[in-house]
Amino acid sequence: MRDHFEIRDGDVAGRIGELTVPRAGVTVETPALLPVVNPNIITVAPDRLESEFGAQILITNSYIIHKNEDLHEEALEKGLHEMLGFDGAIMTDSGSFQLAEYGEIEVTTEEILQFQYDIGTDIGTPVDIPTPPDVSREQAEEELAVTERALRDAENVETGEMLVNAPVQGSTYPDLRERAGRTAYETDLDVFPVGAVVPLMNAYRYDDMVDAVAGAKRGLGRDAPVHLFGAGHPMMFALAVAMGCDLFDSAAYALYARDDRYLTVRGTEHLDELEYFPCSCAVCSAYSPAEIRQENARERERLLAEHNLHVSFAELRRVKQAIRSGNLLELVEERARSHPTMLDGYRAMLDHADQLEREDPVSKGSFFYVSNESASRPEVQRHHDRLSRLDAEGTVLLTQGGTPKSDRFDATWRVVPPFGPFPRALSETYPLTAEVPDRTDDDAYAMAAEGVARLVAANPDTEFVLAHDGWPETALARVPDSVTLEPLHGLSPDEAPDERVDSEADDADDGHGDV
Amino acid sequence: MRDHFEIRDGDVAGRIGELTVPRAGVTVETPALLPVVNPNIITVAPDRLESEFGAQILITNSYIIHKNEDLHEEALEKGLHEMLGFDGAIMTDSGSFQLAEYGEIEVTTEEILQFQYDIGTDIGTPVDIPTPPDVSREQAEEELAVTERALRDAENVETGEMLVNAPVQGSTYPDLRERAGRTAYETDLDVFPVGAVVPLMNAYRYDDMVDAVAGAKRGLGRDAPVHLFGAGHPMMFALAVAMGCDLFDSAAYALYARDDRYLTVRGTEHLDELEYFPCSCAVCSAYSPAEIRQENARERERLLAEHNLHVSFAELRRVKQAIRSGNLLELVEERARSHPTMLDGYRAMLDHADQLEREDPVSKGSFFYVSNESASRPEVQRHHDRLSRLDAEGTVLLTQGGTPKSDRFDATWRVVPPFGPFPRALSETYPLTAEVPDRTDDDAYAMAAEGVARLVAANPDTEFVLAHDGWPETALARVPDSVTLEPLHGLSPDEAPDERVDSEADDADDGHGDV
Repeated sequence: MRDHFEIRDGDVAGRIGELTVPRAGVTVETPALLPVVNPNIITVAPDRLESEFGAQILITNSYIIHKNEDLHEEALEKGLHEMLGFDGAIMTDSGSFQLAEYGEIEVTTEEILQFQYDIGTDIGTPVDIPTPPDVSREQAEEELAVTERALRDAENVETGEMLVNAPVQGSTYPDLRERAGRTAYETDLDVFPVGAVVPLMNAYRYDDMVDAVAGAKRGLGRDAPVHLFGAGHPMMFALAVAMGCDLFDSAAYALYARDDRYLTVRGTEHLDELEYFPCSCAVCSAYSPAEIRQENARERERLLAEHNLHVSFAELRRVKQAIRSGNLLELVEERARSHPTMLDGYRAMLDHADQLEREDPVSKGSFFYVSNESASRPEVQRHHDRLSRLDAEGTVLLTQGGTPKSDRFDATWRVVPPFGPFPRALSETYPLTAEVPDRTDDDAYAMAAEGVARLVAANPDTEFVLAHDGWPETALARVPDSVTLEPLHGLSPDEAPDERVDSEADDADDGHGDV
Repeated sequence: MRDHFEIRDGDVAGRIGELTVPRAGVTVETPALLPVVNPNIITVAPDRLESEFGAQILITNSYIIHKNEDLHEEALEKGLHEMLGFDGAIMTDSGSFQLAEYGEIEVTTEEILQFQYDIGTDIGTPVDIPTPPDVSREQAEEELAVTERALRDAENVETGEMLVNAPVQGSTYPDLRERAGRTAYETDLDVFPVGAVVPLMNAYRYDDMVDAVAGAKRGLGRDAPVHLFGAGHPMMFALAVAMGCDLFDSAAYALYARDDRYLTVRGTEHLDELEYFPCSCAVCSAYSPAEIRQENARERERLLAEHNLHVSFAELRRVKQAIRSGNLLELVEERARSHPTMLDGYRAMLDHADQLEREDPVSKGSFFYVSNESASRPEVQRHHDRLSRLDAEGTVLLTQGGTPKSDRFDATWRVVPPFGPFPRALSETYPLTAEVPDRTDDDAYAMAAEGVARLVAANPDTEFVLAHDGWPETALARVPDSVTLEPLHGLSPDEAPDERVDSEADDADDGHGDV
């Protein structure tokens, strides 16, 4: 049990948590975004990050400070907090990035952790090896062994109240990520960065990123705070949080601003290509793109960095609110439409529905069916698993449209795509209270058929009649042959529906407040 | 030709236009949002709507002013602009809403138009009948006849430079909407409100709203500025603009604020249910929901109204930027995920792909395939129509994966789901430069098969070989029997792909700038 991390609320595998950072004397609410502060170039002053943007924690690089004589001195003398002017928690990186970039660095894990401790770091980092994607398995394993040694070294450093990161590597081998997660979790270290995912994100390989995170999460305990290291684009916060990531760090807000790049939750725009600002932040309400283009470089950078921070912190609030409301997947569904590779990421995530299902709350506010992908959500799988355990006896009518007047049936179950059948007793329970579109797609029908098949397999001696509203052939092909099919209005008059039992699903005014 | 409305840019059936309002001496850029100002209750002062939110035009109700003795006097004396303190354009409604609500009103079209003219209205409105949804066809036709009479009456009023609205009614009968659009367009009136859609939006019937607008648009000329009357929720701006709406009006910003309701592009939230503000605007950055809950009612209303305006105007800027960038449908794709009924609206819109295709630009920046619905976009239909006109002779290889080394084929065409086949000469043209996900869905395959079928039908004497990467049965069933199927790597060695010709579609770094 990690007693410095407490989970307060959850949705899918995402959670709102509290990371207690004893050395800083602060509790950081997660998911959290750590703005990267380059001690050499301050774009937005750390105290403003705190007061205006709500940053509770930031990250800077202890190796840069270690290497620079002046900063080294100043940090040792004043401490990091005073040097940067920041009261919140400060995480420091170790130089691993420089190691990966330049092949070698001048410090060991022991030395840099000691230095981090000495300058007042609240969460320190050992020197791991960020193995890039697509290397040979041999290289990934060798480098992982070095990272694992670094974790053991880190355990042996006396770091007092400072928390210490235990990076999880493994390149693009999900099983190595899982092993790395397990090894890291078995240490007494505190925070778990999933490392070396930046090359995946730079190449828009969100599906591979999802697989890497899923692997790491399988190895880590549920109570492990997970940092998606180097991930700072608001476009993927919802997806990454839904996979179970708790911390993000953004250098992008400043680096992009320097380059006239403008972050949105739908991707990145270049200032030169904008005629209108697609944002409601203070910067975008006060200026037009043409006006900002006329500012000098320094002012332009500051204004764009502030926008980039506003949009990033707002997205994080949106993600947190979605967790509270139990509709994080609905937010992921939207973000998945921002780019075809984000759709790949979401589709990859749904391939892990089993894994997600184990953490997803059993009951939430609402289930919105908003795409073909919705048919593969963990809640649908969970309902199908339940169908394998439900008893249905005698002759049972499964119907999309009504309750028969006749006594030919021993029971009548409602059928709603994508869930399939369920007994009346469950009809007011999540997710069967779902809002579904009137225009049903083939994936929803196919999943409903799968649900029928699961129920039939669990009740081989029961006689089932399925009254459906014209399912496509692909769905009907998945319904077992033993089921009698009847078109919805083909029931004999005394069996015809006398009311629409699926009225909840049809009544758009129901169940979601007002739009 | 409507010479007071000029279209500057377009995407799908949406457009950026300039509405010249001669009496106000201003040009309003469309799509535009008209905040509704209730002359009795000013929530946000009109001069602030202009200076802080960028409103170029607002709407108020001349009937309310007409009925209230004091306001009546003041408006006649000072004029509307001075009375409200607004320099932009002012549209006034006529009392039709009150007529629909209370059964009768005390003015005729002639009287109220004269009054509107007298108080300095820039765009006036006759007394039409807003026929609600789902009435009998008889009622819809009778009331439409009355509305049409009101338009004729309006034509006969001397209104100088004042523009006049020509409302388009017809209830939920798309053919009546079309007829009403045609009749309105034939008058010499100026702006075309599609009326009585509010009940549809209140009931989340976005599909019926789409059908009503599509009907009206079929009747109206392309140069007609179209106002979606009563529509002010930012959630549906993108969808409505893509259908060809130019003007929106929002009473919601103020009415909802009074009721502690908080607008987002994903729906409406109640202040009581928010723990975090999912927004980057100045209000949401400065306050938490808990802090606003502690304000007094008046201040709370003002703050929420300001947020509601920020989010609405930002969405409109986002829509305009999307038109400029040629990715409005990509924005609609995202908004379609905010609620199952919005998905119905989007699916309904794609049922009008033929109609939309006639206005959609032939070439744009990029096509992102981001959902099963993307397979039904107008651009896919247009490509299929083109396939019916393309010549292919001899023996032609249609391949997803490569160019054969052998000379067995007279030509090799690339095949990309959802488009289907195309000759090399078109491979760098829109939409065939599309970004598509690696994880292809059945709808994309089915559409690609449809494309093959169209090409084959146009070239009955040509021998086609289709080398595919494992299409699902449903797609293969749509490929004509005359086509020889080969799995992608089943070609004999000298025909095997020596390069991946679809590398553009796979290279996520290509064609969309940086994310």
